[in-house]
Amino acid sequence: MTVSDVVELEGHIIDSGLMERAFTVVMDLGGEFDIEEFSVGTTKTAESYCRMRVIAEDEASLQPILHELHQSGATLASPTDATLEPAPADNVVPDGFYSTTNHPTDVRIDGEWVPVADIEMDCAVVVENGGPDEVTARTKVLNAIEAGDSVVTGDAGIRVRPPERPRDSSGPFGFMRGGVSAERPSRSLIRDIAEAIAETKAQGGRVLCVAGPAVIHAGGGPGLARLVREGYVDAVSAGNGFAVHDMERSMYGTSLGMDVETMEHPRKGHKHHIYTISEVIRAGGIEAAVEEGLVEEGVMYECVTNDRDFVLAGSIRDDGPLPDTITDAVEAQNAIRRQAHEADLVLMLSSLLHSVAVGNCLSSTTRTVCVDINPATVTQLLDRGSAQAVGMVTDVGTFVPMLAEELLE
Amino acid sequence: MTVSDVVELEGHIIDSGLMERAFTVVMDLGGEFDIEEFSVGTTKTAESYCRMRVIAEDEASLQPILHELHQSGATLASPTDATLEPAPADNVVPDGFYSTTNHPTDVRIDGEWVPVADIEMDCAVVVENGGPDEVTARTKVLNAIEAGDSVVTGDAGIRVRPPERPRDSSGPFGFMRGGVSAERPSRSLIRDIAEAIAETKAQGGRVLCVAGPAVIHAGGGPGLARLVREGYVDAVSAGNGFAVHDMERSMYGTSLGMDVETMEHPRKGHKHHIYTISEVIRAGGIEAAVEEGLVEEGVMYECVTNDRDFVLAGSIRDDGPLPDTITDAVEAQNAIRRQAHEADLVLMLSSLLHSVAVGNCLSSTTRTVCVDINPATVTQLLDRGSAQAVGMVTDVGTFVPMLAEELLE
Amino acid sequence: MTVSDVVELEGHIIDSGLMERAFTVVMDLGGEFDIEEFSVGTTKTAESYCRMRVIAEDEASLQPILHELHQSGATLASPTDATLEPAPADNVVPDGFYSTTNHPTDVRIDGEWVPVADIEMDCAVVVENGGPDEVTARTKVLNAIEAGDSVVTGDAGIRVRPPERPRDSSGPFGFMRGGVSAERPSRSLIRDIAEAIAETKAQGGRVLCVAGPAVIHAGGGPGLARLVREGYVDAVSAGNGFAVHDMERSMYGTSLGMDVETMEHPRKGHKHHIYTISEVIRAGGIEAAVEEGLVEEGVMYECVTNDRDFVLAGSIRDDGPLPDTITDAVEAQNAIRRQAHEADLVLMLSSLLHSVAVGNCLSSTTRTVCVDINPATVTQLLDRGSAQAVGMVTDVGTFVPMLAEELLE
Amino acid sequence: MTVSDVVELEGHIIDSGLMERAFTVVMDLGGEFDIEEFSVGTTKTAESYCRMRVIAEDEASLQPILHELHQSGATLASPTDATLEPAPADNVVPDGFYSTTNHPTDVRIDGEWVPVADIEMDCAVVVENGGPDEVTARTKVLNAIEAGDSVVTGDAGIRVRPPERPRDSSGPFGFMRGGVSAERPSRSLIRDIAEAIAETKAQGGRVLCVAGPAVIHAGGGPGLARLVREGYVDAVSAGNGFAVHDMERSMYGTSLGMDVETMEHPRKGHKHHIYTISEVIRAGGIEAAVEEGLVEEGVMYECVTNDRDFVLAGSIRDDGPLPDTITDAVEAQNAIRRQAHEADLVLMLSSLLHSVAVGNCLSSTTRTVCVDINPATVTQLLDRGSAQAVGMVTDVGTFVPMLAEELLE
Repeated sequence: MTVSDVVELEGHIIDSGLMERAFTVVMDLGGEFDIEEFSVGTTKTAESYCRMRVIAEDEASLQPILHELHQSGATLASPTDATLEPAPADNVVPDGFYSTTNHPTDVRIDGEWVPVADIEMDCAVVVENGGPDEVTARTKVLNAIEAGDSVVTGDAGIRVRPPERPRDSSGPFGFMRGGVSAERPSRSLIRDIAEAIAETKAQGGRVLCVAGPAVIHAGGGPGLARLVREGYVDAVSAGNGFAVHDMERSMYGTSLGMDVETMEHPRKGHKHHIYTISEVIRAGGIEAAVEEGLVEEGVMYECVTNDRDFVLAGSIRDDGPLPDTITDAVEAQNAIRRQAHEADLVLMLSSLLHSVAVGNCLSSTTRTVCVDINPATVTQLLDRGSAQAVGMVTDVGTFVPMLAEELLE
Repeated sequence: MTVSDVVELEGHIIDSGLMERAFTVVMDLGGEFDIEEFSVGTTKTAESYCRMRVIAEDEASLQPILHELHQSGATLASPTDATLEPAPADNVVPDGFYSTTNHPTDVRIDGEWVPVADIEMDCAVVVENGGPDEVTARTKVLNAIEAGDSVVTGDAGIRVRPPERPRDSSGPFGFMRGGVSAERPSRSLIRDIAEAIAETKAQGGRVLCVAGPAVIHAGGGPGLARLVREGYVDAVSAGNGFAVHDMERSMYGTSLGMDVETMEHPRKGHKHHIYTISEVIRAGGIEAAVEEGLVEEGVMYECVTNDRDFVLAGSIRDDGPLPDTITDAVEAQNAIRRQAHEADLVLMLSSLLHSVAVGNCLSSTTRTVCVDINPATVTQLLDRGSAQAVGMVTDVGTFVPMLAEELLE
Repeated sequence: MTVSDVVELEGHIIDSGLMERAFTVVMDLGGEFDIEEFSVGTTKTAESYCRMRVIAEDEASLQPILHELHQSGATLASPTDATLEPAPADNVVPDGFYSTTNHPTDVRIDGEWVPVADIEMDCAVVVENGGPDEVTARTKVLNAIEAGDSVVTGDAGIRVRPPERPRDSSGPFGFMRGGVSAERPSRSLIRDIAEAIAETKAQGGRVLCVAGPAVIHAGGGPGLARLVREGYVDAVSAGNGFAVHDMERSMYGTSLGMDVETMEHPRKGHKHHIYTISEVIRAGGIEAAVEEGLVEEGVMYECVTNDRDFVLAGSIRDDGPLPDTITDAVEAQNAIRRQAHEADLVLMLSSLLHSVAVGNCLSSTTRTVCVDINPATVTQLLDRGSAQAVGMVTDVGTFVPMLAEELLE
Repeated sequence: MTVSDVVELEGHIIDSGLMERAFTVVMDLGGEFDIEEFSVGTTKTAESYCRMRVIAEDEASLQPILHELHQSGATLASPTDATLEPAPADNVVPDGFYSTTNHPTDVRIDGEWVPVADIEMDCAVVVENGGPDEVTARTKVLNAIEAGDSVVTGDAGIRVRPPERPRDSSGPFGFMRGGVSAERPSRSLIRDIAEAIAETKAQGGRVLCVAGPAVIHAGGGPGLARLVREGYVDAVSAGNGFAVHDMERSMYGTSLGMDVETMEHPRKGHKHHIYTISEVIRAGGIEAAVEEGLVEEGVMYECVTNDRDFVLAGSIRDDGPLPDTITDAVEAQNAIRRQAHEADLVLMLSSLLHSVAVGNCLSSTTRTVCVDINPATVTQLLDRGSAQAVGMVTDVGTFVPMLAEELLE
């Protein structure tokens, strides 16, 4: 005796890799398939369609296959409404809760497909049903779940829509490409990234820059400050260290005590870091420090002066911290989440911790650029599965000035 | 016209590198020196002594030289009492505050040298003077400074005592050695590390293990759990992710959804991570989860069962987090600081973030072992300047089982 | 006006990624397609078939598309014989020569498909036509081309057969997977690799081990020697340095002067390396050195004693070199090429240079295991496109002993 | 009973680290010392002097200590002539041969100190004694030793002169510094490197550039070609791959088949690599290819046109190779050795293999600049112990254009 169920795939399912993935899932998980219908888009823009019966030895083997097919964009041939169960307590999900992918997703409520708002990975889906036309669904991370929330469970009534390969070239952005090649001409790639940023801005999009302290040490501060000032970067997501190094540079011309021009250590320099924090605390925060003239240039200065959004998320490595740094991790995540959801292109510069935190909150449809000297970092960040990502293994200290030149000169 | 001042160095100042460093400091910072007296320890155990006049063009050039010499262990020939100034506000240090090294340090108050308690790098020194025999000095990080605290300023009246090279071999531990060589026989080095741990325990010392989630993914969980159970590890410092992966392994046999034995992904597995957190929250925390039988083995289980100290510090990468995770960065640092100050040997396993946080709180006299697959991580951690550190670039998934075998079999 | 041509794809073309690749090629290169026929294998073992008309603006645009489709396994719907042209001179190929992939390949001569022997990447195909049933085709690297050789040009009459995804799980070996995950339990993966080696031997296959000097430094020498002795490794491909370190270990107990047990540097030790070479030269070579009792254990000793094939390829880094080291790069490549063609499973241990050299000569059907501490090295080696490859980022000094234990105990 | 001997150290022995090293050697190797005389240079330019009796339990313990002290620059208090023994056979050194460091060295023959020519590491010293004033000594690598050569054995009569720390700042060059910091402003460091090159040229010195193929892939070709043309680079040391990629770029505008401007793969592109070699072979070599107009720009073009010295050393990774590539490793080493001995500053760009080969032949007094994206490579190259070395972890594709701009604009 075997059991089976029927799923459908639709769209550019061959070149977007969905058919390959579907076949692989079934075989890897020990199932069989029977293609009941397959119509291939005979031209580049025509869509394909596949109806496939999936067969397994028993229900326990079939369910994981269906689940996995489902996460890859297949839908059950005869859709039913999503199953909802109340959260048993705050921060607790019901058994069998549906855990999201980072792809656009719909849930079926009362026969209607409702899009899930704020899609990001590994969340629960909470539905508010205020009657016809007033049904909403959105993601909630575990710590936002409240007792009684209507949480989607199982796979039924859920439709995942993985991004499809663009019909034309997508510039430097690879389609669902985890890998990264170091063997590209660096300047050409920087030019392409500049174009993507300019294009995003031209279309009214928002650019979020995630920046680590290495941007400042390596000498990328002035370039990034210019990009903030000229509006190519709309928001900055960073840590306490980044902001301190940036302001230390303005206040003392040093970064961690090293003169950023001469590279000499004006001994006593290592105190500058702590003293910068102390002085900004005394002033009452970054905005106050800018206003009282303590900080006269740099990324934070430009953020304050040009009213750009910034989030400084605290970590256990921090000195100080600054009054502006959000020390609670959950609160900081919420601020980062807002930035991520608003962004159309994210530029990740030499910051594994903050880039992962931002990346966790991104939909697969957000353009992502990762720049790091460490290829393992770039690979890890691209692996998150953005449909349009480009990774570059380079020196942020040469990348940022060159990018600024491409965009501003 | 030139200005000058006289400093003294004393002890095993040649082979511990202090004389070299002193000469270098003067030359690098553009000064001159005149050796007024130099007596070299003529035998291995005899100490040396040097009195050196340092000459510079003006006071502005002289002070940085003296400061740097001072940080390296030189003392002014004619010591005066330390200068104290009240902190102007909470979290604000007075101008010219003295910023600590990670070496044992004394401050001179009323003609007496008082040791600074809880020495760690980049802190202020706060003195409480309750009269003769009731003077204490201790480090305070910026966020612990309270308005009115008596803070040491300048370099006068401060004595730094960098560790001296041991008179005999220190086993695998290099003396003040930042570098790390990959070209050593791995098993021999693991054996030496096991001996250092056993020796520390035999002397009644305390071993702190800083562990990243890779310890669990790579299969090091059971070995580390045994070391905790058998008392070779007294305390664990980790993050939310480490604890979740460890308990997911006990609850589902998976880590991030991958079966840790068969390495197969039981699809649906990626939900295990979130569900583990949800269930532990439901139970009321890790201890409750162990007690109700939800978690039956692993590192956290052994910590709870054997009453080992653990700290879980939150970060912006966390899912959940667990109720036991300290989400506030300052509060988490304080917990980590306590662990670091209590430790005699710190074993850092595949966790850059947590290892840096712990390392920031360590005195240069605490033995440190860093293990990571990434040589840059090991180098960065050893650069902090422990007098007795050993770095090993290896796979934590093979290191932990081998270490456990050496210690337990 | 447009031009077009028709290609066919056949086999497990969906789940092996050929269809996805074909669609992508056409779109990336600016063409259009029209699917004239598509029959999908309705069950797991049934094959699929696709006939596709490819359309481009002109011949100059069409040819690259057809070429690329062809390299990916598509064949022209109406095959013709391959075009042959004589090589104009030694080491010179005719204009438009066909450059091989590493996939099994046939050429059509007199209406018959002839398999190309010794397939490897980036070679020319030379045909010897001695009349019916006496036609042979084989790869030749540039430096083997002789004036007058019949060299295949263009794409016509060539059939490339990329490996298909196995119908069942292939153990630790990923299908055409370039990436490598560090997040696997190390011991489980080592166990799987041991099983693959044992399986290869049980099937009468041949295991080639490519080993760098780090194997010896890290303490993997004894384990590898045992694998050679017990016949789990049939052949060794290494450099001069590997052999010298290995024999230095036997002659002096050191590797580059470091005692491999105690890790102490018996000063004078750095001379051991040169002196080892000098003594082996004096003896007349490795075999003679083993016979006269100069070398009494180790990998080279076991190779000589058990008559295992070894190749030592010279490089510009070498000291000496040993008399057994092939100093001419072309001659060394030929020796390596022979080893590669004979191997059924290749185990690459911590040697980028030699692993690339061996990898260049491998067909995509040879199983490959890459072990290195540097993830970039593993990625680079896996990128060569073996259909069955597994990469492991680990410490060769712990990997080799564990592998030997799995296989021998 | 103990045995002892007396050694002397002289010069800037404290700040150059020699005293520290001497004390450490004695203690690490289990000896004792008795300082018989110590006079410290009381001012910056005055030299110091130390006479030290070294005591050990027996001769077997004493000799390694003396040897090691000796390699570090100590001399026996009562020097004798060097001991000479004839080489027993070609490529064979006598027992106890003296193996060189990379520091300037003298040998004492007939009571006179004779400098050793062509100093490099791990060589034998061969003396030709043609009578008074006609005594010469020079290094010979093992494969250059001829039967009967007078080879220095033991440590007696040899004087090693490790470089001393410069009395003033040495710009970006660290003194005997193995480590490398990524936390420097990249542009400032590039500017400093440019100045060091310009200074070397202004002093009539010679700049050797060791370049890997990544220089071309990453887009550094045009910049390096300009530096060759304008005479900032006097000689190039590279491999077959570098030259092929460079000429492929000129002939087809591609590198390994990728268009270096647009980064698109003109499919068929992977054949360009082989075809480039084939065409250059047809022309008769690189010079001929330049002359017949086949190659019209690039690094090799500039080398030929401006008569710059280049060496292409073969390796087992090579395609082809080109007729200009020296395929024999020993012959190639000799050519590299000549380049290394002539160089005053060596710029190593993204080539581990060739940089190690060149580095092996360098005296510790040659300035060295290492640039690589992989910090482990930079560390490994700097560890060789140049007295004046600077390492930079950056992207060669941004480094070379910026360096060319600094020097040429």
